[in-house]
Amino acid sequence: MPYRAPLDEYRLLLDHVVGFDRVAATDRFAEATPDVTAAILSEAGRMCEDVLAPLQRAGDLHPAKLENGIVRTSPGFAEGYKAIAEGGWVSISAPPEHGGMGLPMTLTTAVNEMMSAACLSLQLNPLMTQGQIEALDHHASDALKAIYLPKLVSGEWSGTMNLTESQAGSDVGALRTRAEPIGDGAYAITGQKIYISWGDNDFTANVCHLVLARLPDGKPGTKGISLFLVPKFIPDADGEPGERNALSVVSLEHKMGLHGSPTAVMQYDGATGWLVGEEHDGMRAMFTMMNNARLGVGGEGIGAAEGAYQHALAHARERVQGRSPVEGGTGTIIDHADVRRMLLEMKAEIFAARAIALACAVAIDMQTATDDAAWAARAALLTPIAKAFGTATGMSVAETGIQVHGGMGYIEETGAAQFYRDVRVTAIYEGANGIQAMDLVGRKMMDGGDAALALLDELEARGRDARGALADLAEPVLAASSALREGVEWLAGQTEMNARFAGAAPFLRAFARVLGGHYHLAAAMACGEGSAQAALARVYIMRMLPEHAALLAAARQGAADLYALDVEDMAR
Amino acid sequence: MPYRAPLDEYRLLLDHVVGFDRVAATDRFAEATPDVTAAILSEAGRMCEDVLAPLQRAGDLHPAKLENGIVRTSPGFAEGYKAIAEGGWVSISAPPEHGGMGLPMTLTTAVNEMMSAACLSLQLNPLMTQGQIEALDHHASDALKAIYLPKLVSGEWSGTMNLTESQAGSDVGALRTRAEPIGDGAYAITGQKIYISWGDNDFTANVCHLVLARLPDGKPGTKGISLFLVPKFIPDADGEPGERNALSVVSLEHKMGLHGSPTAVMQYDGATGWLVGEEHDGMRAMFTMMNNARLGVGGEGIGAAEGAYQHALAHARERVQGRSPVEGGTGTIIDHADVRRMLLEMKAEIFAARAIALACAVAIDMQTATDDAAWAARAALLTPIAKAFGTATGMSVAETGIQVHGGMGYIEETGAAQFYRDVRVTAIYEGANGIQAMDLVGRKMMDGGDAALALLDELEARGRDARGALADLAEPVLAASSALREGVEWLAGQTEMNARFAGAAPFLRAFARVLGGHYHLAAAMACGEGSAQAALARVYIMRMLPEHAALLAAARQGAADLYALDVEDMAR
Repeated sequence: MPYRAPLDEYRLLLDHVVGFDRVAATDRFAEATPDVTAAILSEAGRMCEDVLAPLQRAGDLHPAKLENGIVRTSPGFAEGYKAIAEGGWVSISAPPEHGGMGLPMTLTTAVNEMMSAACLSLQLNPLMTQGQIEALDHHASDALKAIYLPKLVSGEWSGTMNLTESQAGSDVGALRTRAEPIGDGAYAITGQKIYISWGDNDFTANVCHLVLARLPDGKPGTKGISLFLVPKFIPDADGEPGERNALSVVSLEHKMGLHGSPTAVMQYDGATGWLVGEEHDGMRAMFTMMNNARLGVGGEGIGAAEGAYQHALAHARERVQGRSPVEGGTGTIIDHADVRRMLLEMKAEIFAARAIALACAVAIDMQTATDDAAWAARAALLTPIAKAFGTATGMSVAETGIQVHGGMGYIEETGAAQFYRDVRVTAIYEGANGIQAMDLVGRKMMDGGDAALALLDELEARGRDARGALADLAEPVLAASSALREGVEWLAGQTEMNARFAGAAPFLRAFARVLGGHYHLAAAMACGEGSAQAALARVYIMRMLPEHAALLAAARQGAADLYALDVEDMAR
Repeated sequence: MPYRAPLDEYRLLLDHVVGFDRVAATDRFAEATPDVTAAILSEAGRMCEDVLAPLQRAGDLHPAKLENGIVRTSPGFAEGYKAIAEGGWVSISAPPEHGGMGLPMTLTTAVNEMMSAACLSLQLNPLMTQGQIEALDHHASDALKAIYLPKLVSGEWSGTMNLTESQAGSDVGALRTRAEPIGDGAYAITGQKIYISWGDNDFTANVCHLVLARLPDGKPGTKGISLFLVPKFIPDADGEPGERNALSVVSLEHKMGLHGSPTAVMQYDGATGWLVGEEHDGMRAMFTMMNNARLGVGGEGIGAAEGAYQHALAHARERVQGRSPVEGGTGTIIDHADVRRMLLEMKAEIFAARAIALACAVAIDMQTATDDAAWAARAALLTPIAKAFGTATGMSVAETGIQVHGGMGYIEETGAAQFYRDVRVTAIYEGANGIQAMDLVGRKMMDGGDAALALLDELEARGRDARGALADLAEPVLAASSALREGVEWLAGQTEMNARFAGAAPFLRAFARVLGGHYHLAAAMACGEGSAQAALARVYIMRMLPEHAALLAAARQGAADLYALDVEDMAR
């Protein structure tokens, strides 16, 4: 089943929906001209279509395995990775002084999404490296940067994130891994980390682990955590991989999907590491990496959704069942209203999630280019929404994709099931979606809702411009936006934090629903009444946007009802 | 992970929510006294807890396999099946004259659901047999009944349904399997059938296939289809398995889940079969079986949801992460509002789906007992809702169950993932959920919505009684019910059938949402303000019921918007 890169949709989104022109107008990103942007996307798209998509099934059928302490990756993954690295697709946005292209995160976001659609399990490898590059660039010493960044940027080496321990998942502060100074600015790292994506591989010359650990004088909780760079092979005097470090892969997890991506239990036995950032300030550095990765994981959900959609559409265009209920139909099941509804809702949902992710990336780029606190606040606001809604879209679209296939969807050979199994983890890792929702209503609303309201101000102003040409679409979007605005104000007014948390998940989804409405409306305006894009917007606005009201009602319930049953009642 | 039969909830539902007292008050089901009912449910529950639940993982880890034409079932399944058969759990509702208990379908529905929760893949076997018993009882000749029913009822033999062919799925009428008369009332059956659940096994002495095929003079389409009973071993003069019939298992499918249930491609090479019902009237007999199976499959979804819920609840009660946000909490993640929200929504959704399934079963029993067309219409109305909503609940609850587990949910050893993979097929087989929705808005609304409105009349009258004691719960339910009523009237008024189909899926879900509200309200009334049940009803009514408005908006869109994009636009 081939993958086709959705280049036209990216073009539309960048040019007319998410305001990429503002990014390209900055000095920092002056090189991101329309020509460069188009060339990057089409070249990356071709690589995804030709090189990565053929690997998708192989990763599922032949999982990475651990043999005598060595991780053997799935057939073809080494070549696929080589294409990613040599094409420069690890490092579109990495610093040029270390070999990166220095292009906007918006382009990385689009490219990552295409790679995810083509081969989710392999794409996770460079995604982790990208986060590591950003963390090192912001927080590491010049000496560390000089050794590691060129190798990571070129893709010769890859990077991982080591946060979780068996007793420390969402509660990172509970970690027990220790770091002891051993002189020369080095530390001995001891402990066990779990769920380490791409903890090892057999195609990069080195694997560099960013490990959270506690120094002897580190306080309990997150404030006593430091971040260390711990390479598999310690670089020698020439910066080439030297002595083997005291770390090992203990085992690989047997997961429901994403089989091509080895998920490792990592053991550190006094492994040599170097401090990144300040002592006891590891969470700050790790958040740099996590925010990057959170947007990336949202993109994974969107990519998987796109893959599942294309797969289901191809099936619906071929499968003949029953008489066509419409005149002049194709004669396949795509003529049936319910099949068409499923496909159009899949497509409309992907558009919404993609627009949100790219809008988040634009905010990150504007923050980078302008250092303006308002852009930083917008990026921070949109990151959890992009992550949770992107991955929720991945799950729901993959589920519908199976449904479009009927019985064939449940048979593994068809491939529809793999999207469903693979994408499921994206709602969990890099902060489970519930954690994203709590971040949104907690930390990201500490400003009293200012960033959220500023975004709505901007979108509503644009929406009002659509009242003339597309009144029937503009009015419901503006009404939904007003309802969301009230929701933001209500939420920001809750001083009892648990009242916010009790509505966090539906609030996040309501926010995404309304943003999707605005972005669909903008696209419809750009393409004009009567366009296919306006027709897609209509499906979204009339059939899917109404959900926002139910979500906001749930978001505003407060916490009391959730504690009215005690735990024994719940078990009865 | 142990399973606990939810006996208290069945009791509450039967006594106060779905009107089982009316069934027990009929002559036909006079034996279904409260004592008998309680004994049946608790004995079946114990068997599910003790015998079936331990088999669940084994079925996943050791799929049924085909070896030299013989299906080898998963470890322990033979013993598990023996417990089901010897306990009489295949045939609670089967005719007493053939060895069944003759008890209401309502009890079978509850018992099937418990068996599904404990071991979904094994439970599918007796579910198919139950449908076959009912089809033979209604449509077969006395001679066939005398030979087959006692063996099926006792569980010595099992039954299957053979509808689908590779070109004939939802469009059964496209089938090509042929039947040729060979004298003595027998027929030679030739063709290939796919997706045959439990097409063979190594623990029943015979496997009896109900096969749809076309006689030489059968017209094209569904009107030319006849139904045949085709046993694996042809019964000898004593009614014992004799000569091997000309049929074979070609292969077993490699499915995403339900590995313990062998899904066969069946080949019939002039196999000997006997007509069931009239020539060319096979669809009518098959629908007897399918309606039975549809309710049963809805119950499979509910059972899987219950299993996933219990699994997630147990995890949430044990897993310690972070500080408790509430005073006097347990110290585990169940103290967190978002975790509690997930669990309570799971529980509330299961209650709603279970109530709908049992209400459907009550209608079937009342139809059986009274032969009243109004009850028949209600059973027909509720069957597609019970099937589609029960299985959708299975999917959504299993998805949330993984989420409650965090990273552990994605690791197969935890077991949460199995519920998610296993239950996915229930939304597809026995008529994909989209087909159920089309049945609801098409065939089941041919009465102009009378059956639907009669049900709402009854429920609203009861809901008005709650206005005094539970006004805050009663009012939203009654308002939602009015909105559904308008939806029914709008829909029944659409003469263009595709306008109905375009909103079929959201309409079905809206119907279920509102029914769930009524049933929760009734349970809250029975248990009283301040009860845990009223608290659960509040979660459902305040947080989940509001979805009905969005669904009804989508249901009333008509079909035009779905055809405004052409297929090429959808691929762009």
